[in-house]
Amino acid sequence: MSAPYKFQGWMGLDKNATEGKMVWQEYEPKTWTEDDVDIKVTHCGICGSDLHTLRSGWGQSLYPCCVGHEIAGIAVKVGKNVKHVKLGDRVGVGAQSGSCLDCEECLNCQEHYCTSMVGTYNGKYSDGSKSYGGYADYCRAPAHFVVKIPDGISLAEAAPMLCGGITVWNPLVHNGAGPGKKVGIVGVGGLGHFGILWAKALGCDEVVAISRTNSKKEDALKMGATKFIATEESGWNKKNARSLDLIVSTVSNPNMPLAQYFQLLRTNGQFIQVGAPEDKIPAFSAFALIAKGCKMGGSCIGSPADISKILQFTAEKQIHPIIQERPLTDANEAVIDMDNGKARYRYVLVNEKHVKELKA
Amino acid sequence: MSAPYKFQGWMGLDKNATEGKMVWQEYEPKTWTEDDVDIKVTHCGICGSDLHTLRSGWGQSLYPCCVGHEIAGIAVKVGKNVKHVKLGDRVGVGAQSGSCLDCEECLNCQEHYCTSMVGTYNGKYSDGSKSYGGYADYCRAPAHFVVKIPDGISLAEAAPMLCGGITVWNPLVHNGAGPGKKVGIVGVGGLGHFGILWAKALGCDEVVAISRTNSKKEDALKMGATKFIATEESGWNKKNARSLDLIVSTVSNPNMPLAQYFQLLRTNGQFIQVGAPEDKIPAFSAFALIAKGCKMGGSCIGSPADISKILQFTAEKQIHPIIQERPLTDANEAVIDMDNGKARYRYVLVNEKHVKELKA
Repeated sequence: MSAPYKFQGWMGLDKNATEGKMVWQEYEPKTWTEDDVDIKVTHCGICGSDLHTLRSGWGQSLYPCCVGHEIAGIAVKVGKNVKHVKLGDRVGVGAQSGSCLDCEECLNCQEHYCTSMVGTYNGKYSDGSKSYGGYADYCRAPAHFVVKIPDGISLAEAAPMLCGGITVWNPLVHNGAGPGKKVGIVGVGGLGHFGILWAKALGCDEVVAISRTNSKKEDALKMGATKFIATEESGWNKKNARSLDLIVSTVSNPNMPLAQYFQLLRTNGQFIQVGAPEDKIPAFSAFALIAKGCKMGGSCIGSPADISKILQFTAEKQIHPIIQERPLTDANEAVIDMDNGKARYRYVLVNEKHVKELKA
Repeated sequence: MSAPYKFQGWMGLDKNATEGKMVWQEYEPKTWTEDDVDIKVTHCGICGSDLHTLRSGWGQSLYPCCVGHEIAGIAVKVGKNVKHVKLGDRVGVGAQSGSCLDCEECLNCQEHYCTSMVGTYNGKYSDGSKSYGGYADYCRAPAHFVVKIPDGISLAEAAPMLCGGITVWNPLVHNGAGPGKKVGIVGVGGLGHFGILWAKALGCDEVVAISRTNSKKEDALKMGATKFIATEESGWNKKNARSLDLIVSTVSNPNMPLAQYFQLLRTNGQFIQVGAPEDKIPAFSAFALIAKGCKMGGSCIGSPADISKILQFTAEKQIHPIIQERPLTDANEAVIDMDNGKARYRYVLVNEKHVKELKA
């Protein structure tokens, strides 16, 4: 029996897709299995990855490509083998929709580091089907990567946590963010704003927002930052040297002042990069790390278990990300605005028809 | 009362000192205080740092400069305030001879990360005195940085542990080296050979020696390596991809194949650099760290408490570093040979007169 709905979405056709060139098209979703869930998409966050992928910034993309991996909505078809999701549940899927489920990583709730990881878009499942994201009416995904969204969080607010939120959460909690720790967040954008919200909610002693200019200072302080550093002000690195235990860097500009960021670290401090530049990061002197016993690391999204954890945490702590809803019909304009840095702080595409049906 | 001995040592006078140009000269040691110890030097290891410093490779050195910071010998004068060392004790001093003793680092047995750290040579104490190292007859050092050498280790074998040994020990034990872990050591030289000995003694599942050529393969296996990788063999990185939990890199060549070393790391793996290149390390793609949740760190020597710990461990486990004794009188030749990579695996300068007096 074929589904009583068609899979349609905004497709990038070539690397100019971010310039308002996505087109609304029907597509063939992954071949249905009884381990899958079809989601009627109500909301989808716009993530920086969407733009990198649409323009083949991280390598040639598999066009036509429907991006979007902060997908929230309603389960409208649930495979027989699926136990944790029921028809009609509020669910979401993040940046990952597949892995081998059998390797050491998968067996240790680190599916996001499985070497057979399948991205929610621009990927290929083991059966050869292509994966398509959430700038769309519907999305089909393996249930293992579909999480339930708890009551107490709106679908709109849940959406950007599925990638942006978890991407910043993991490097914070796995590197000791909490009481007694001074934490810096580089970049006050979609990811960075989550960094500030999480670091504050986790009870860090200091939450320092680090941005190029002072333009987002007021916002950052409202989000919970205890201090703001503008790197266009000369001497910022010396003035704040050795002040932070942990820095999570959400920026993806390969010309970031890495050596200066390292100066901000205290002894045994850690700098974790989550923004993924399209080019190499600047060469630095190993002394910067050796002299203070510091580390630079990387971190990539999180597992379905991790995502469920932050959704629960968010519901309990009543944390509200700062989002701006944009109609799915205006996805092209929203992508252009996102590329121009206009999002304050996360755009979430809304399928207004589906939202209306949900309220009816 | 002045000491009944003169302070004399091999002095580098300019950046050509490594070319057989050190001269034997008397010098003025630090101003005596009752917190100090004078050591009659019997042995002093030759460390890579000595060469970097003699030629001003890490910045202009304070010539005249007497290097050597793997100093072992006998306490021949002990300040009244000193409690842990008695006259006649077998003692040693490593790469550090001063710190503020009052900061967070100092109060947490991390004196080696104190911002007021004074090197055992090429440094200045807070009173303005210069520090001079162990290519010398005698050495004066603040007792806080003088450790007792336990019975069961010869002075000759203890010497290279005071810098070389501890430099590799700390990144291993602080990053989980032990049963269940697969550890790689980059470089089979003075530091690297300690890495292999320690990793084996700590009970690591695998101890992988990584060198450019196969020339040290046999030696490395004898030291305890379970596997050897020669990076001049094409495909070494792919063949051994994702095989190691922890890599300690002892090389200081800024052209090291860093991106390929990262390939050897497993998920959540760590690469710790202890060799300090004179130039920046190669730029790399942040993806290398992000995609596997890996970290690159640095580590610098260790505290007096750390050093005492390894001396005890070495005595208990009866670990024997592989050293070659060279007469102190031939220090210039030994430095040239060290520079040419001839040491197998650590040169230790011997003050034959002092050793003879000790045996008498």
